[in-house]
Amino acid sequence: MAGLKVGRIQGRMQPLSDEKWFEYPVHVHAHHTDYAGVVWHGTYVAWLEEARVECLRSVGVEYADWVAGGCELPVVELSIRYHRFLQMGKSAVVRTRMRKMTGIRLHWEYQVQSLDGQETYITAQVTLVAVDRQSGKVLRRLPAEIKDTLAKLPAS
Amino acid sequence: MAGLKVGRIQGRMQPLSDEKWFEYPVHVHAHHTDYAGVVWHGTYVAWLEEARVECLRSVGVEYADWVAGGCELPVVELSIRYHRFLQMGKSAVVRTRMRKMTGIRLHWEYQVQSLDGQETYITAQVTLVAVDRQSGKVLRRLPAEIKDTLAKLPAS
Amino acid sequence: MAGLKVGRIQGRMQPLSDEKWFEYPVHVHAHHTDYAGVVWHGTYVAWLEEARVECLRSVGVEYADWVAGGCELPVVELSIRYHRFLQMGKSAVVRTRMRKMTGIRLHWEYQVQSLDGQETYITAQVTLVAVDRQSGKVLRRLPAEIKDTLAKLPAS
Amino acid sequence: MAGLKVGRIQGRMQPLSDEKWFEYPVHVHAHHTDYAGVVWHGTYVAWLEEARVECLRSVGVEYADWVAGGCELPVVELSIRYHRFLQMGKSAVVRTRMRKMTGIRLHWEYQVQSLDGQETYITAQVTLVAVDRQSGKVLRRLPAEIKDTLAKLPAS
Repeated sequence: MAGLKVGRIQGRMQPLSDEKWFEYPVHVHAHHTDYAGVVWHGTYVAWLEEARVECLRSVGVEYADWVAGGCELPVVELSIRYHRFLQMGKSAVVRTRMRKMTGIRLHWEYQVQSLDGQETYITAQVTLVAVDRQSGKVLRRLPAEIKDTLAKLPAS
Repeated sequence: MAGLKVGRIQGRMQPLSDEKWFEYPVHVHAHHTDYAGVVWHGTYVAWLEEARVECLRSVGVEYADWVAGGCELPVVELSIRYHRFLQMGKSAVVRTRMRKMTGIRLHWEYQVQSLDGQETYITAQVTLVAVDRQSGKVLRRLPAEIKDTLAKLPAS
Repeated sequence: MAGLKVGRIQGRMQPLSDEKWFEYPVHVHAHHTDYAGVVWHGTYVAWLEEARVECLRSVGVEYADWVAGGCELPVVELSIRYHRFLQMGKSAVVRTRMRKMTGIRLHWEYQVQSLDGQETYITAQVTLVAVDRQSGKVLRRLPAEIKDTLAKLPAS
Repeated sequence: MAGLKVGRIQGRMQPLSDEKWFEYPVHVHAHHTDYAGVVWHGTYVAWLEEARVECLRSVGVEYADWVAGGCELPVVELSIRYHRFLQMGKSAVVRTRMRKMTGIRLHWEYQVQSLDGQETYITAQVTLVAVDRQSGKVLRRLPAEIKDTLAKLPAS
C-alpha cells in the first residue's frame, strides 16, 4: 500500500533545518501494525511518550524519579495529524521538543519522519500538567528542580 | 488518587439530554492502566475505535466487510482532552456520534463518561477519510453504500 | 488468509459439553490485529485477563477491591497454544475456568473459540499467585475472603 | 514494591557465561506498566517479538521482506515464567537465541534480565512455524534462503 496523501496537509510543515529537536528512533514491528500492514494510529501515542521520556533522560532525568518524588506529568491534551502510512519493517525517527511552558502546563510538539527527513508520517502536540501524586490535584507551580531540568532541554 | 481537575475545561461540556449518541460500555482492566492506577492516556484511542466500529455494527455494517470490499477509513486527525482520571475496576461508557461528513472526511465526536453521566473522563474528535485499499489513495467520493449506511447513524 | 492448521494440535481438545466454563465474548477490532489481518498473538493475553476478571465479577467480586485491600494476583506462568488465526471483524468467545488451587497458586485454563464452538483459536493456561501489595512478597495462604469467593466459581 | 520471589523458580536458571545470546535493550515506560507500577505481564510478548526480529536484522534480514516474499512465521506456542517484577524507569535486556529447528518449527528461548545480569525478570519460550502467506497453510519445508539465514544466528 502506498502512502496516504491528504491534499495540502503536508504543505503546512515548516523547514526545520535551524531548529533543535530530540530524535528518538523507532522500528515498526508486527505488534505496532494493524490489518493494513501499517502502524496502527494509536501506536504513535506510545512512541510520543517514549520520545518525551527519553528526551528527559538525555538531560539526566528519569521521569520515574519525579513520580517517586510525588510529581506526575499526565497528558491533558493530545492531538495528532496523520500524513502518511508507515509500513511494517520500516525505521523512522520521532522528533520532539518542548515548545513552551505556561505555568504548570508543558507544551510538546512532535514529528515522526523517515530517517532521511523526506517523509513525515505524523505531526503531534501533547500538553502535560504537573500533578501532585498524593492528592491527584494540579500543582500551583512547577517544582524548582523540574523547572530547572526542563530549561536544559533543546530550545525551540 | 482523586480526579484530575483542570480548571474550566469541564465547564465547556454542553448539556446532552436532547441529543442522540451511540453508547459503548467499557470496564477498566489492569492492562488498560499505567503505574498511576488509572487508564493510560493511549488506551482511550482503542476504545474510540471500538465504539466507532460498534456504532456501525448497530446499523448492520461490519467495518471489516468495507475493508474486504476495498474501502478503508483510516484516521487522519485525532484530538483528545483529558478531564478526569478513570481508575482500575471502574465501568464507563464511550458515547459517540458522527457529527458530519464533508466530502470524503467523516467527523466523529466522543465523550467517555461515568455510567450516571455525572463525570466526564475525556472528550475527543476523530476524523476519518475514505481510502482505496489497493492504491492507498484518498477516494474522490464516498462509495454509495457507505454513504447510505452513514446516513442511518444517530443524527447529531 | 485461511486458518492455520498445525497437524494434530486441535485433536487434543476434549469434548466440553458437560463442563462449566465462564464465557466472555470478544470482537476483533483493528487494534487487535497485525499486518496479517488476524489477531496479533499478544492480544490474547489482554483477553485472558479480561475474561478472568469478568469471571470474578460474575460472582460479585471486583478484582480492584482485592488490590485496594492489599492482595494482588499477578501472573507467574502463562502458556498459549495457537491453533487457528482469528480474523478482523469476527466475534469469538473466551471460555475460562479456574481448574484448581494449590496453596496460593491459582490455575486457570482457557479456550478462545468461535461462537458456535466449532473452531478453537487458542488454548491457554495461566497461573496466578497471591502477593501482598505492600511488600511484594508471596502470601503464605490465601485470604479467607478470596478463598471463599473462588469456591463460588464454576467448578471444573 | 519489592521483587516477586517465587520459591525455587529462579534457582533453575543455568549459568550462561559460555553461551551466545542476542541482546536487545529495553526501558520501562508508563505505557508498559500497569496499576502496580511494574511491567504488565502481556507487555513482554511485544518485547520478545521485537528482540526476535532485531536478532534477525543483526544478520542482515528484515522479517517484513520475508512476509513480502510470501513466508510468515506466526507464533504457535508461547510460554512465559515470571520471576521478578520489573519497575517503571528501569532498563533491562531481552536475551534471545534460536535453540533449534525441527522441520518448519523454530524454537526460540528468552531471558529478560537486569543490565548486570544479576536479576531475571522472566524466562520464555516461543515456537514459530513457517506459513505460506497466500494460503495460510504450514509449509512443508523452510525456504532455503530462510534456512540459510537462520543458520547464521548465534549458536546455542
